[in-house]
Amino acid sequence: MESLPASISRTIKTSHVLPPDTNNHGTMFGGKLTAYIDEVAAICAARHSRKSVVTASMDSIDFLNPIKMGDAVTIEGVVTWCGNTSMEVFVKVTSEHLATGARNLTTTSFLTFVALDENGKPTPIPQVVPETEEEKFLHTTAPERRDARRERKQRL
Amino acid sequence: MESLPASISRTIKTSHVLPPDTNNHGTMFGGKLTAYIDEVAAICAARHSRKSVVTASMDSIDFLNPIKMGDAVTIEGVVTWCGNTSMEVFVKVTSEHLATGARNLTTTSFLTFVALDENGKPTPIPQVVPETEEEKFLHTTAPERRDARRERKQRL
Amino acid sequence: MESLPASISRTIKTSHVLPPDTNNHGTMFGGKLTAYIDEVAAICAARHSRKSVVTASMDSIDFLNPIKMGDAVTIEGVVTWCGNTSMEVFVKVTSEHLATGARNLTTTSFLTFVALDENGKPTPIPQVVPETEEEKFLHTTAPERRDARRERKQRL
Amino acid sequence: MESLPASISRTIKTSHVLPPDTNNHGTMFGGKLTAYIDEVAAICAARHSRKSVVTASMDSIDFLNPIKMGDAVTIEGVVTWCGNTSMEVFVKVTSEHLATGARNLTTTSFLTFVALDENGKPTPIPQVVPETEEEKFLHTTAPERRDARRERKQRL
Amino acid sequence: MESLPASISRTIKTSHVLPPDTNNHGTMFGGKLTAYIDEVAAICAARHSRKSVVTASMDSIDFLNPIKMGDAVTIEGVVTWCGNTSMEVFVKVTSEHLATGARNLTTTSFLTFVALDENGKPTPIPQVVPETEEEKFLHTTAPERRDARRERKQRL
Amino acid sequence: MESLPASISRTIKTSHVLPPDTNNHGTMFGGKLTAYIDEVAAICAARHSRKSVVTASMDSIDFLNPIKMGDAVTIEGVVTWCGNTSMEVFVKVTSEHLATGARNLTTTSFLTFVALDENGKPTPIPQVVPETEEEKFLHTTAPERRDARRERKQRL
Ligand SMILES: CC(C)(COP(=O)(O)OP(=O)(O)OC[C@H]1O[C@@H](n2cnc3c(N)ncnc32)[C@H](O)[C@@H]1OP(=O)(O)O)[C@@H](O)C(=O)NCCC(=O)NCCS
Ligand SMILES: CC(C)(COP(=O)(O)OP(=O)(O)OC[C@H]1O[C@@H](n2cnc3c(N)ncnc32)[C@H](O)[C@@H]1OP(=O)(O)O)[C@@H](O)C(=O)NCCC(=O)NCCS
Ligand SMILES: CC(C)(COP(=O)(O)OP(=O)(O)OC[C@H]1O[C@@H](n2cnc3c(N)ncnc32)[C@H](O)[C@@H]1OP(=O)(O)O)[C@@H](O)C(=O)NCCC(=O)NCCS
Ligand SMILES: CC(C)(COP(=O)(O)OP(=O)(O)OC[C@H]1O[C@@H](n2cnc3c(N)ncnc32)[C@H](O)[C@@H]1OP(=O)(O)O)[C@@H](O)C(=O)NCCC(=O)NCCS
Repeated sequence: MESLPASISRTIKTSHVLPPDTNNHGTMFGGKLTAYIDEVAAICAARHSRKSVVTASMDSIDFLNPIKMGDAVTIEGVVTWCGNTSMEVFVKVTSEHLATGARNLTTTSFLTFVALDENGKPTPIPQVVPETEEEKFLHTTAPERRDARRERKQRL
Repeated sequence: MESLPASISRTIKTSHVLPPDTNNHGTMFGGKLTAYIDEVAAICAARHSRKSVVTASMDSIDFLNPIKMGDAVTIEGVVTWCGNTSMEVFVKVTSEHLATGARNLTTTSFLTFVALDENGKPTPIPQVVPETEEEKFLHTTAPERRDARRERKQRL
Repeated sequence: MESLPASISRTIKTSHVLPPDTNNHGTMFGGKLTAYIDEVAAICAARHSRKSVVTASMDSIDFLNPIKMGDAVTIEGVVTWCGNTSMEVFVKVTSEHLATGARNLTTTSFLTFVALDENGKPTPIPQVVPETEEEKFLHTTAPERRDARRERKQRL
Repeated sequence: MESLPASISRTIKTSHVLPPDTNNHGTMFGGKLTAYIDEVAAICAARHSRKSVVTASMDSIDFLNPIKMGDAVTIEGVVTWCGNTSMEVFVKVTSEHLATGARNLTTTSFLTFVALDENGKPTPIPQVVPETEEEKFLHTTAPERRDARRERKQRL
Repeated sequence: MESLPASISRTIKTSHVLPPDTNNHGTMFGGKLTAYIDEVAAICAARHSRKSVVTASMDSIDFLNPIKMGDAVTIEGVVTWCGNTSMEVFVKVTSEHLATGARNLTTTSFLTFVALDENGKPTPIPQVVPETEEEKFLHTTAPERRDARRERKQRL
Repeated sequence: MESLPASISRTIKTSHVLPPDTNNHGTMFGGKLTAYIDEVAAICAARHSRKSVVTASMDSIDFLNPIKMGDAVTIEGVVTWCGNTSMEVFVKVTSEHLATGARNLTTTSFLTFVALDENGKPTPIPQVVPETEEEKFLHTTAPERRDARRERKQRL
């Protein structure tokens, strides 16, 4: 199976933060954001593997800054590493206060997706070729994160 | 007021097409798509003007190809021309069949937004400087479209 | 195929405007309204043709007056003209400030729907017989609008 | 306070039944329908009273026929009787199988709304003048239903 | 068919009340609550019968106290009585003002569900064995309520 | 400030899994589940602290078993440990195949919430007294998890 450049999987989603997304302080619920993160990362994984994919895990997420109602939030994801049937996707979230253009980093996150065949069984996928400096760094450090995930799952 | 490059307003939104977005043929409702188009174009207009904005008009839309459940749909918008208080936003919609990567152009559209001050009154905005070839072409042809809109509104 | 009176297709939808439908000025998003317009017009087209229908196009829309959170919005549609496989639907949108009963015309719009057979191919439909004065006027002026749409689509 | 004709409050809402509205038999959830019923009846009550209104009670509802995914469902309501601060609203629900035009009565229901002033206290409203035969019949039989509701509430 | 303890069907749903659930007084719509009530009761009925179920009827509901935006609302249901193919489900709704912990009873309600086989026909279900004092009381008084429902349905 | 028993914060949410919650394999999106997890955990944190709360972090989540459309999913949360202004919430997710009653553990997760005063600044909260064996175990092991989170955040 041919390797594919990371750029094929790169996906961007920008959304308006609306009243149902926010608590009574007018800041976005963490769970609304993780729903967006999973949606973007799933499209990344499907673009790379051209298979149905399911979320195997979401690494820990630290919410560094609140997002306000009326802000634009941008979620950007890319496939950073592939195992045999699983892919690591890196996601970065920034918010933009539209009235001023001020931007904040909200969080970064790693998710793992598994590609499934028609019977819902894990199925092999192509390797990914990192292109940018950030992608290359994340590709190099990925096996370490994969090992930490394995250990983590065993302790459950 | 300083002019701003078009790139400041450029906004991309990619979404998964889900069952509530589709009819019983499994293809996306036109109205769900126009809702996305308006959301993206409103963010473009707010990024350019740094004001509250409202949709003044949506030019005619021809839906060239259906979008299927499970596809990814990408809406990309940019400010192409500015009057005194109004902006023209150009939006392009493409769908991607995730299982194969095949892409289709669904539609292009022009929307006009007006910037409002705190009292909800139209308020002046900066001019836009087109950068790409496509932006330059759309900028040059914009006054003609504005004239057609004026005429159209008078006939209502 | 027998012709059908326009009244068969007439459809009304009244809704409450709620927080997720509105921007931070408390006025309704244009895209939420076009989603309602498309839903109502699609029911009109299905009632006339008794087939699955898809939106082929939405003519330009001018938003004449803002709709406020808490208002009731009424969308009313009717089939005005039929080609071989396509129908023109006319839609009128009015808002009502519930505390006073004051009503505003928000917009009018023409949409074209195409009837599809089980294989998703365009399929013939009955002609429509206009009944009210407004329907008769719109029926008479429809071929002109259809020609303008054809020309418009060719220029894309 | 002047009496108002029932026609002022008459409200119609037609909607498409979509996948999220239905169970795994493809028939509409009762709770989705009661949400529509309450929305329509609340608009009726606000149109009559020109006040904020809250649902005081919903009388029993028998669901006579299932509604299928893809059907159009029409909810029609009208104010039938007024006390000092409360209104009875009658709602009728019909579904239409769009492919054939076959219609079914799903249910009828009576709801009571109370008008509130700015402090959220019940506030007097105009009386209603029934116009159609059905409205006159429902108006005549309303005091009996109100008595039954009072008794019912006391037994809680 | 073996009888089943009521506890098998017991179901609890706690939710945050958000802006789209509320009117312009910031209190929850009755129809949003009845949608939750039906969802919880349907899960109760499915847990008891292990069949597909449809709502046959919802008894009258009196909304005793408003629920505010930001409150938590808890819906708790249990099967209280079974006929041949139908089940009565009792639902209790309480709201909690999260800032103080103050709780209010909003309403109680009885719903009837019918179990369906693969062809959508009513199908026999096990009897229920009440366990708590409240369940025993509701079980004993259920046949009376069923008779009232039959009479009510005939009068439609 | 008085310590509070863990039981005060215990929160349960059971929901039906519907078409918009699922991918084209008919299994629930990970992101929909994390949205539910955050909602439940936020109610736990608010019940303990009686303050506004924001999600500071979500620890890693492993999705052990898929959840199918039509299943019931139950999310249960409880506060397990408190710092000065932050709380750890433990959440357990199980799914139930309604046709058979078969249950699966989907995932467990730890979230950290911070209590905010009216100015949006972190504010002190009561300590929690664990009661069940599971709560006591999680309480004892909490400081270790907190240290790991601090280290993790510094490495960002
Ligand atoms: C959470 C937040 C209020 C913390 O602010 P801060 O300036 O770091 O505050 P402090 O350093 O005083 O820390 C306050 C407490 O939070 C804890 N904390 C901060 N970040 C944390 C993290 N990522 N994970 C776990 N705990 C964290 C601290 O340990 C401290 O705990 P303690 O008081 O019990 O000892 C701030 O980071 C924030 O607003 N983040 C965004 C929250 C949000 O909007 N979430 C949804 C995003 S869509
Ligand atoms: C609409 C559609 C079926 C037309 O297909 P087509 O191959 O162009 O079909 P035809 O050329 O045979 O035209 C069929 C009819 O549609 C009309 N039509 C086609 N495009 C149209 C347009 N943009 N505006 C108005 N009418 C149009 C034609 O005039 C013709 O009318 P008639 O039969 O009454 O004379 C096709 O373009 C399509 O599937 N578009 C996507 C629809 C959709 O999914 N909308 C929602 C997008 S989110
Ligand atoms: C509920 C329904 C299946 C009953 O069908 P039916 O032909 O009346 O069936 P039966 O006469 O055999 O009655 C079956 C059982 O339902 C009970 N039942 C019927 N209508 C009822 C009502 N309105 N209230 C309470 N119980 C009712 C009967 O008493 C009988 O109970 P039992 O078997 O325990 O003795 C049918 O009316 C229906 O499909 N209604 C629509 C349900 C629906 O789609 N709800 C959501 C609407 S949006
Ligand atoms: C409805 C409500 C305002 C009534 O308050 P109250 O203190 O009982 O007021 P009153 O006794 O003065 O009654 C006011 C009117 O409501 C009527 N009413 C009260 N409860 C009623 C009920 N359950 N059913 C029908 N009418 C009712 C009274 O008969 C009286 O009518 P009238 O003025 O026309 O003679 C109050 O119970 C309430 O706020 N309930 C919650 C409403 C709500 O939020 N609904 C949605 C819940 S999710």
